[in-house]
Amino acid sequence: MPLVYITRREHFNAAHKLWNPAWSEEKNFEVFGKCANVNWHGHNYELFVTVKGQPHPDTGCIIDLKLLSSIIKRRVIEELDHKNLNLDVPFLKGVMASTENLAVAIWQQLQEEVESHGCRLHSIRLHETENNSAEYFGE
Amino acid sequence: MPLVYITRREHFNAAHKLWNPAWSEEKNFEVFGKCANVNWHGHNYELFVTVKGQPHPDTGCIIDLKLLSSIIKRRVIEELDHKNLNLDVPFLKGVMASTENLAVAIWQQLQEEVESHGCRLHSIRLHETENNSAEYFGE
Amino acid sequence: MPLVYITRREHFNAAHKLWNPAWSEEKNFEVFGKCANVNWHGHNYELFVTVKGQPHPDTGCIIDLKLLSSIIKRRVIEELDHKNLNLDVPFLKGVMASTENLAVAIWQQLQEEVESHGCRLHSIRLHETENNSAEYFGE
Amino acid sequence: MPLVYITRREHFNAAHKLWNPAWSEEKNFEVFGKCANVNWHGHNYELFVTVKGQPHPDTGCIIDLKLLSSIIKRRVIEELDHKNLNLDVPFLKGVMASTENLAVAIWQQLQEEVESHGCRLHSIRLHETENNSAEYFGE
Amino acid sequence: MPLVYITRREHFNAAHKLWNPAWSEEKNFEVFGKCANVNWHGHNYELFVTVKGQPHPDTGCIIDLKLLSSIIKRRVIEELDHKNLNLDVPFLKGVMASTENLAVAIWQQLQEEVESHGCRLHSIRLHETENNSAEYFGE
Amino acid sequence: MPLVYITRREHFNAAHKLWNPAWSEEKNFEVFGKCANVNWHGHNYELFVTVKGQPHPDTGCIIDLKLLSSIIKRRVIEELDHKNLNLDVPFLKGVMASTENLAVAIWQQLQEEVESHGCRLHSIRLHETENNSAEYFGE
Repeated sequence: MPLVYITRREHFNAAHKLWNPAWSEEKNFEVFGKCANVNWHGHNYELFVTVKGQPHPDTGCIIDLKLLSSIIKRRVIEELDHKNLNLDVPFLKGVMASTENLAVAIWQQLQEEVESHGCRLHSIRLHETENNSAEYFGE
Repeated sequence: MPLVYITRREHFNAAHKLWNPAWSEEKNFEVFGKCANVNWHGHNYELFVTVKGQPHPDTGCIIDLKLLSSIIKRRVIEELDHKNLNLDVPFLKGVMASTENLAVAIWQQLQEEVESHGCRLHSIRLHETENNSAEYFGE
Repeated sequence: MPLVYITRREHFNAAHKLWNPAWSEEKNFEVFGKCANVNWHGHNYELFVTVKGQPHPDTGCIIDLKLLSSIIKRRVIEELDHKNLNLDVPFLKGVMASTENLAVAIWQQLQEEVESHGCRLHSIRLHETENNSAEYFGE
Repeated sequence: MPLVYITRREHFNAAHKLWNPAWSEEKNFEVFGKCANVNWHGHNYELFVTVKGQPHPDTGCIIDLKLLSSIIKRRVIEELDHKNLNLDVPFLKGVMASTENLAVAIWQQLQEEVESHGCRLHSIRLHETENNSAEYFGE
Repeated sequence: MPLVYITRREHFNAAHKLWNPAWSEEKNFEVFGKCANVNWHGHNYELFVTVKGQPHPDTGCIIDLKLLSSIIKRRVIEELDHKNLNLDVPFLKGVMASTENLAVAIWQQLQEEVESHGCRLHSIRLHETENNSAEYFGE
Repeated sequence: MPLVYITRREHFNAAHKLWNPAWSEEKNFEVFGKCANVNWHGHNYELFVTVKGQPHPDTGCIIDLKLLSSIIKRRVIEELDHKNLNLDVPFLKGVMASTENLAVAIWQQLQEEVESHGCRLHSIRLHETENNSAEYFGE
């Protein structure tokens, strides 16, 4: 039985800033530059969720893509879309809103429910801009 | 002499919300939905500035693209990038931060200086997401 | 009052073939080549609907983009998505399913309802592939 | 000697439906939704074939890309382009036309001939839409 | 009868430099900067040719897209692809290889033959990079 | 502590040809076809540099992306952008300018300095066109 990887793309638009509350304003600007703008900035985030497994003989599919999309939307997109990542999101409380940390937090939001449907979560890839992205494989 | 149009793409990442300060919070949510999230959201804006004119016989160019890029960066990108469009931008004070209004305001920031270099500003096209954009031709 | 153009992108995936029922099979293959494959082929169509008008002073918007999207979805996408354009679509009966004709038919589906909201339909641009597209301005 | 991976992109446009012939029409609609439209739908498929090997000292290349492209075109694209994946393709007979199964079948079409040229087939990545893709590594 | 615009995308990869042979090396560097690198640089040019006309009642098409593509390939792509635009191209002799001038020269290569097939050439849009493009409408 | 991969995209535009100086002109044309055009051709190269490591607790980042970008620009982009890859680049002397070899050479330019900042270089992916790319993982 072949092992196949499928990837679903979703989107969210959010505000954030890179800001360490343990530091002074000066230190934040020195380290994070314009990403520390006090009044926030924002991005169109593009999220790629990759799942692996064996295609089911009856459907040819690893997981119903409509189901995968609905899990991502309920557990991630509805929480993050048109939100402030530093202020509005329960599962990001106390998390520095870097792309790296967002990818890890999104993995944690998805793994259990996705894997309850007979496949394995393989990776979370998150693009902050067309030049910057982070990927996490659960390790 | 041929009339040619050239387009330069630039980017900025910014926070905003759609919010009419003359309305109640309820009215704002009713009209603007999630775009009125109190704590802001944001976008990777993609800006296309189109200029028209006749290529100069010595250079083959309508305007030096490095010069055009530097004007856009100084007058628009430095003002908007990693900023809050509702709070941080002098030339947007009192302007509802819709894509439509941003395109018009960017035109006004650019026209005089761009046209001082022997060409005409033709249009400002601004993409808020890959699904939504606005274009303004100065009329 | 400025005149601004906004564009909304939507998608549909459909099967079709280029086939003139008044012609023989041989003539169809001769004229349309592989596009006349008897058992159909298909595309991911990308649709850009452009509307023009003056931003409303209260909202900064020409038309509520959620409303525009819902009109396009109800009148066009639900009719065409995951359908056979030659067989399944009432508003395409008797229409050769070329990109040109689809653009014109989509304009006719949208114009009246879009223009009942205080703006003008400006153009329908339809991409059949990343190499081929058609645009119609209602003339 | 370094081990390098090269990727070649090709395209095909095809019709298909998700349909299990052992099931009733009702069951097919229940499981596959609009993807089971009886009269088919279709996609612009984007195929990425990745090959790995050591660059040849005389050419700097793992495999002549013109040769790799011609193998993909002859063994895959000519078989699938402007075809109905459920009806027209000998190497897909009896295969549910899911993106997962297509990726596996394309691997089988390519492996032997590609690997006869001194390199290894690494992966087949197939995009059905800009939101959905499948990848197979031969395991 | 509706008037529809269709656009065909083609590509070519070429070397060039911006260089005015009437100027000194110093003047060329001063005006064109790194674009005047003596040993050339190059681009993946992306060409969009737009044609307008009325869809033919028998075919639904303004012009056979296979024919349009073959005209563009024969008259433009074969002349420019994998060439040095300053040295190798008869129809560019004496032309400064700016994107503006290339767009005008490509129009002149195409207009007569394209318009001999019952449609009108509307525009030539040429992208030098994803940030820079030129468009010419024949005026 | 999670292990996260981040990717930074940069660009350069360059001329090159595929040409083995130990071969005759005829042999070069026979093997490399139009890629051996004597007067060069060129590309918009798109470079993706992937780095892996553990996000720092104070910043949430594996490496300051501004620093990573500045290293890539200084050691790679300034050397390659608007250059002739066969003639102008000290670190490519004697290297056949294939995408495969460029990816390996860029790895060697970057590894030591990138890894002096507490992370590991994971891969270099280089796109020559939208259809062709090479990736190197340092093995």
